[in-house]
Amino acid sequence: MSAVDVVCAGAAITDILLQPVSREIFDADSYPLDQIKMTIGGDAINESTIISRLGHKVALLSMVGDDAAGMFIQDSCRRESIDASGLKVDPTIDTSINVGLVAADGERTFVTNRNGSLWKTQAADFDLSKLEGARLLSYASIFNNPLVDGTALVGIFAEAKRHGLTICADMIKPRLGETLDDVREALGYLDFFFPNRDEAALLTGCESLDDIADAFLACGVKNVVIKNGRHGCFVKTERQRFEVPAVPGVTAVDTTGAGDNFVGGFITCDPRRQADRRLREVRELDGGHLGPLDRRDDGREGSPSGTRRARTKLRLTRGMA
Amino acid sequence: MSAVDVVCAGAAITDILLQPVSREIFDADSYPLDQIKMTIGGDAINESTIISRLGHKVALLSMVGDDAAGMFIQDSCRRESIDASGLKVDPTIDTSINVGLVAADGERTFVTNRNGSLWKTQAADFDLSKLEGARLLSYASIFNNPLVDGTALVGIFAEAKRHGLTICADMIKPRLGETLDDVREALGYLDFFFPNRDEAALLTGCESLDDIADAFLACGVKNVVIKNGRHGCFVKTERQRFEVPAVPGVTAVDTTGAGDNFVGGFITCDPRRQADRRLREVRELDGGHLGPLDRRDDGREGSPSGTRRARTKLRLTRGMA
Repeated sequence: MSAVDVVCAGAAITDILLQPVSREIFDADSYPLDQIKMTIGGDAINESTIISRLGHKVALLSMVGDDAAGMFIQDSCRRESIDASGLKVDPTIDTSINVGLVAADGERTFVTNRNGSLWKTQAADFDLSKLEGARLLSYASIFNNPLVDGTALVGIFAEAKRHGLTICADMIKPRLGETLDDVREALGYLDFFFPNRDEAALLTGCESLDDIADAFLACGVKNVVIKNGRHGCFVKTERQRFEVPAVPGVTAVDTTGAGDNFVGGFITCDPRRQADRRLREVRELDGGHLGPLDRRDDGREGSPSGTRRARTKLRLTRGMA
Repeated sequence: MSAVDVVCAGAAITDILLQPVSREIFDADSYPLDQIKMTIGGDAINESTIISRLGHKVALLSMVGDDAAGMFIQDSCRRESIDASGLKVDPTIDTSINVGLVAADGERTFVTNRNGSLWKTQAADFDLSKLEGARLLSYASIFNNPLVDGTALVGIFAEAKRHGLTICADMIKPRLGETLDDVREALGYLDFFFPNRDEAALLTGCESLDDIADAFLACGVKNVVIKNGRHGCFVKTERQRFEVPAVPGVTAVDTTGAGDNFVGGFITCDPRRQADRRLREVRELDGGHLGPLDRRDDGREGSPSGTRRARTKLRLTRGMA
């Protein structure tokens, strides 16, 4: 039995941001910056970090090499109280290091290692025994580990379903030209899907939030939660739709990992405790037309894990459909 | 008493080489390479590694932060059997990470952290108690840790002299516009000085190898050994001068750390065992006009450590002047 509430499977890498840089970088022998730091990156470890900081027990399923970057990731798990017993260390692989070149205007290029751990991770590298006893699987993110394709995802999600977990996933832009058809069956397992608008539009070929959400609902996703940047998020299920605007008065200075933080917060929040305050905020902003936040609990029986709700200590946002 | 033969003081950092890259890197969101690896960098740890691999006991005096890059450096010392008991770990400092952008034509830019450990290392960070009982101090390299200025070097070298060590140093191009006058007194302590030709020409304002060497001899350096790239090296003392060409038949594919390797090999070689074979090679190449390789032992009494020679187990190249 796993002692964790949430299992996060997916990418755990290291990022090195070089900021600010420009094309003129190539004209100098040496280009000094005020800071160069190695930081944790990758959707699964980012989410794990937030979930752990929010007070929940989380296990990370990922793969790293037996090198400095891999040790850094393992150390970060220790510091953040993330269960890393399912983090595979493969001495034949280099841990992925992404070097971000960030221009003064915020535009960024990531130099990546196409033979790093991110690209070499396969479904078999995820220790699915960690699913046993957990309440929720968050896969972060579809397409991020290219070898974990649609078929592999079906295997992982079916195993999670067998254990009665709520299943969530985020996505990134396809790296290898994958289409919606490639992941259609896998999406059918999802209780919650958290694409951002650009990624979702690209994958579905749709433009409006409603059309995008409908395309995913047609695949069998139960709750589509589209992250819409500064506009907040858009939620659609078979029975309801609503938008939640971003919290006002916040100046975004760095959106790195913002989506991972959103998902980490979403899947660990307690809707009943938050709903009233949030609803008041929303009504003050938008005259109440977003409506159904106060009907969040509607239809919970539609969730496969709904019957377990009464026993949960971890108040996961689940069963919204 | 230190149990080491050589003490290497100076820079220990981490390098990340991005190769090949070009200006077009900024036109893409993602720029995949075949490999991105973190490697050891910095003259002192490079030299230490070679000296240890050549079978000698070596202690590294340097400073790193309490972070992933610093742990990588400490791990590398363990793997390479380098005594790291004099490697200071300062939790308030970020270990320097140099990101090298290498173009297809080999031209390279190093993006550096002007607040990293390299720039923050001071003479007081070097644990000079490690000099006790050692035979040779190699300072790698003058100007590389900018806060270790000429005055600081005099303090370090005077302490090494007090312990009877042979003193060697390499140099890099001045980072802060330092001049020969700034290090003149420090150079007076050197038994061996290993600049490369470009650096030496820049610092002395001289062009010919002889003039460059004379400028350093005038500062009190006993043996000037100028690394001259593909041409080999040029050696000059008060009493002799000769060139040693590079070993023929070698195609250089990467000169990173080549100078550090040269110095590591030079200070640990056994001239008496090598001289005959090397001399034969040299004569075959150049008709013997390089001459005095076979008189290497001439004038050894000119070296302050010459009188200790008979007792040395480690056969350091010393006392050539």
